[in-house]
Amino acid sequence: MAVSDIDRLVQMLAKLPGLGPRSARRASLYLLTHRDSILTPLAQALARAAETVRTCARCHNLDTADPCAICADPERDSGLICVVEQVADLWAIERTSSFKGRYHVLGGVLSPLDGVGPDDLAVDDLIEQVRQGGVREVILATSATVDGRTTAHYIADRLVGMNVAISALARGIPVGGELDYLDDGTLASALKDRRSI
Amino acid sequence: MAVSDIDRLVQMLAKLPGLGPRSARRASLYLLTHRDSILTPLAQALARAAETVRTCARCHNLDTADPCAICADPERDSGLICVVEQVADLWAIERTSSFKGRYHVLGGVLSPLDGVGPDDLAVDDLIEQVRQGGVREVILATSATVDGRTTAHYIADRLVGMNVAISALARGIPVGGELDYLDDGTLASALKDRRSI
Repeated sequence: MAVSDIDRLVQMLAKLPGLGPRSARRASLYLLTHRDSILTPLAQALARAAETVRTCARCHNLDTADPCAICADPERDSGLICVVEQVADLWAIERTSSFKGRYHVLGGVLSPLDGVGPDDLAVDDLIEQVRQGGVREVILATSATVDGRTTAHYIADRLVGMNVAISALARGIPVGGELDYLDDGTLASALKDRRSI
Repeated sequence: MAVSDIDRLVQMLAKLPGLGPRSARRASLYLLTHRDSILTPLAQALARAAETVRTCARCHNLDTADPCAICADPERDSGLICVVEQVADLWAIERTSSFKGRYHVLGGVLSPLDGVGPDDLAVDDLIEQVRQGGVREVILATSATVDGRTTAHYIADRLVGMNVAISALARGIPVGGELDYLDDGTLASALKDRRSI
């Protein structure tokens, strides 16, 4: 069998997260046998995304416009900034339709083990935005991991004394979660942060 | 958030087997943040595959050449034809490097429930090849499923009296398989087809 365009396609697909060599082969065959319905449209969608999608200079979201649709939306509260690690987190919050402020995408978390320091994240321009005024509250929506919390603490430290409210996501029982199946840390947090009803 | 080129990319990726909406979003973000290393090369690999890959008129394999590299290879035994359901099965057998004949890809299996009849599969041209002579043996390498076996029986019936040996893959214990974990059907087959040592 020739080391050919087919193998090249399989190799490229296998680099995507979630696809191993086996599923990349399966996806390649699916593409090759569904040319008009999937292969060509996917090739066009990729080429078009490569051409049009850019990073918002203000919040580092990915969009076809800069500033992005969220930053440019006058209906959104520009005094409320939700700080997230990745664009994926921004998408997740947007899917809830429960947040009407703006975002700030850090591009990762502080991680000494992986050699990620403050300079590798988009922290300075967040601080600068707050310094320029107009921001009432910064919500630190990083992950509930060690690195995520460290990052949140680091940003909170830098925001101290800047006349801005700093908050974090509530920790507690997930909706639909059963107590018996919860890990101890989550249960302890939920107990500690109990609310009066 | 704009219904944009990003959403379009996610939608197209979600159509691939093995990728759901969530992993398609993850793959899209990975592509958009790794533009030069993955996004553009993948777009090019897809466009190139759409352009160059075709179906071999003789065996229905997918390749950049017609006849395909296997059919065109003079080192391969053209008297031995291995009949498989899909190109994926052909690839699987090729990876073993243990077969030096040719293939014939049916393009599916007989499946009355799914409305797949003999005319939907590449059976007629296989029979015609055998009729023209030069084929010593046809190996029916369809799946060990009901539909796969039905398809093998159907082809075997049509080959009867054509002076060609007909064989099927051995059924038995997989290499490395433990008896205790085998299903009853496989164990029964392995016992029935036991070989003297």
